[in-house]
Amino acid sequence: MSKQDFAVDEIARKIELGNRRALSRAITLVESSHPTHRKQAAELLQALRTDREAIRIGMSGTPGVGKSTFIESFGLQLVESGLRVAVLAVDPSSAISGGSILGDKTRMDHLSRHSNAFIRPSPSQTHLGGVARRTREATALCEAAGFDVVLIETVGVGQSETMVAEMADLFVLLLAPAGGDELQGVKRGIMEMADLILVNKADGDLKAAATRTCADYAGALRLLRKRGQDPEDFPKALMVSAIEGNGLHQSWIEMQALVAWRKKNEVWQKIRADQNAFWFNTELRHALLTRLENDPEAAAASSAMQTAIRAGEVAPSVAAERVVQSFLRIKKT
Amino acid sequence: MSKQDFAVDEIARKIELGNRRALSRAITLVESSHPTHRKQAAELLQALRTDREAIRIGMSGTPGVGKSTFIESFGLQLVESGLRVAVLAVDPSSAISGGSILGDKTRMDHLSRHSNAFIRPSPSQTHLGGVARRTREATALCEAAGFDVVLIETVGVGQSETMVAEMADLFVLLLAPAGGDELQGVKRGIMEMADLILVNKADGDLKAAATRTCADYAGALRLLRKRGQDPEDFPKALMVSAIEGNGLHQSWIEMQALVAWRKKNEVWQKIRADQNAFWFNTELRHALLTRLENDPEAAAASSAMQTAIRAGEVAPSVAAERVVQSFLRIKKT
Repeated sequence: MSKQDFAVDEIARKIELGNRRALSRAITLVESSHPTHRKQAAELLQALRTDREAIRIGMSGTPGVGKSTFIESFGLQLVESGLRVAVLAVDPSSAISGGSILGDKTRMDHLSRHSNAFIRPSPSQTHLGGVARRTREATALCEAAGFDVVLIETVGVGQSETMVAEMADLFVLLLAPAGGDELQGVKRGIMEMADLILVNKADGDLKAAATRTCADYAGALRLLRKRGQDPEDFPKALMVSAIEGNGLHQSWIEMQALVAWRKKNEVWQKIRADQNAFWFNTELRHALLTRLENDPEAAAASSAMQTAIRAGEVAPSVAAERVVQSFLRIKKT
Repeated sequence: MSKQDFAVDEIARKIELGNRRALSRAITLVESSHPTHRKQAAELLQALRTDREAIRIGMSGTPGVGKSTFIESFGLQLVESGLRVAVLAVDPSSAISGGSILGDKTRMDHLSRHSNAFIRPSPSQTHLGGVARRTREATALCEAAGFDVVLIETVGVGQSETMVAEMADLFVLLLAPAGGDELQGVKRGIMEMADLILVNKADGDLKAAATRTCADYAGALRLLRKRGQDPEDFPKALMVSAIEGNGLHQSWIEMQALVAWRKKNEVWQKIRADQNAFWFNTELRHALLTRLENDPEAAAASSAMQTAIRAGEVAPSVAAERVVQSFLRIKKT
């Protein structure tokens, strides 16, 4: 998308009318870190209507729990009931491997071909900060495009769950049945983010194990309940079978109940406002540090200070203060 | 220390002559976050000689492993052999509780009264970033004061070990004997930082368990060896008994061997240079963000943007860019 053919209002209207090609191109635009593209992306985001709100569902689960199968079955159930569903993937590990969780679209064969569904693989070769902004902005594009549900998928790697939880309305953790009564080594921090734990593979030989695992997690979740903030019975653990389809409808009913409760109790908008404030602070720090890094004179001062530090001539804190003074003085002239 | 009575050169010379009262007051100065004190601290650090180098030993161990007893015994052994030893404590948890690891000096009764030792409790009520700078600068003061060894003690809380490892020449992990063959749940990241693991309490009833634990860790450490960077037999696991004094002398011999090897192979200076570069980058980011936070006009712009974001009128990344532009434009006039 070059500068001359970027008609921001036209693209915005196309997205709002549900034009998939316009949406795809806009997501490619917000994925770019090129300054011109960043500027265009900002203009586009400002030009879009903001009165449309999807239910943004963050979904995490380690490889092997059947996440793709679950999203395929769950997503199909939603689109067949007439809802429009977008699926976005966040995978910082793909930034390293250059791969993509959803790159293999055949894994969601039926869903990806449905006219009410939109599946977007994660971009490769971006750092975590870039992934966060791209996913947040792609979600905003999907909301403006009128999707009812945006599923944001992540694998349990590093800090990606925290990031996704900060941009989702609901956070769902997908687990597999565990042997014995062990809690699968799920990090406590991730359990604390979950609104709903779904124990998948509750079918065939694994059904008994799934029942036990679900009960274990239900018990653990009771200890994590925050009184007043959510309905009394949340967070909740349920059994599902993505393959047989059991529990999928119930999962959606639970999600809707939580959404309705939060909207009624003004928790919904508060969470969104807090998330926006969080991302504003994150972006603010990032934007300022990027300016410093890209400032040629600050870079020269920084490089001179690095040499002085290595020679033991100046303390790191003193050197840092000098570079900042030089950076801000440069801006004065 | 008010502005008029701050005679930087006089204080620097006193510290270099080993005046303990001057050193104590200087550490209090670097602990302060008051702008005048920060400026004075920077002047003082610049005025001090930098040709004196201590062996900076980072030491971590969870409560109950006998860290205080170890430091008392190990420190006494060093001071009695004529070395001068400073002990600094890093304890981010004390920032929360307001307490201090070394606050109870009776725990190191003999060492604290020895003329060759200097023990400084951790300051309370400072955030982790502040603790890092204070400890780094206090270490530099101790080096200028001619101490041969600076022991930097931390408890296994949060990121404090990583911070201490980034300001120490050697990192020592103190452990207690474990039952069975389990590895006590030591975080892998911390094992990877250790140059020396000391299994304490290798005395009385626990001696057999200590032997087993030491062998387990020795095996684990073999897997973590980085070829070429260190002598072939490092990192190493040893048994010690802080109470009976066994293994303390051997620990010191091992530390000296590692120091000698690193100095001979130019690894020593490289590690110090890398650490200084790391802290410079950390301080640089911190200094710039502090300027932004303290800028009244940026604060006003930021506050207006927060309102616009909550109202859904502007995307977080767009708002952030505007505040940064406003902050840098303000500096232009």
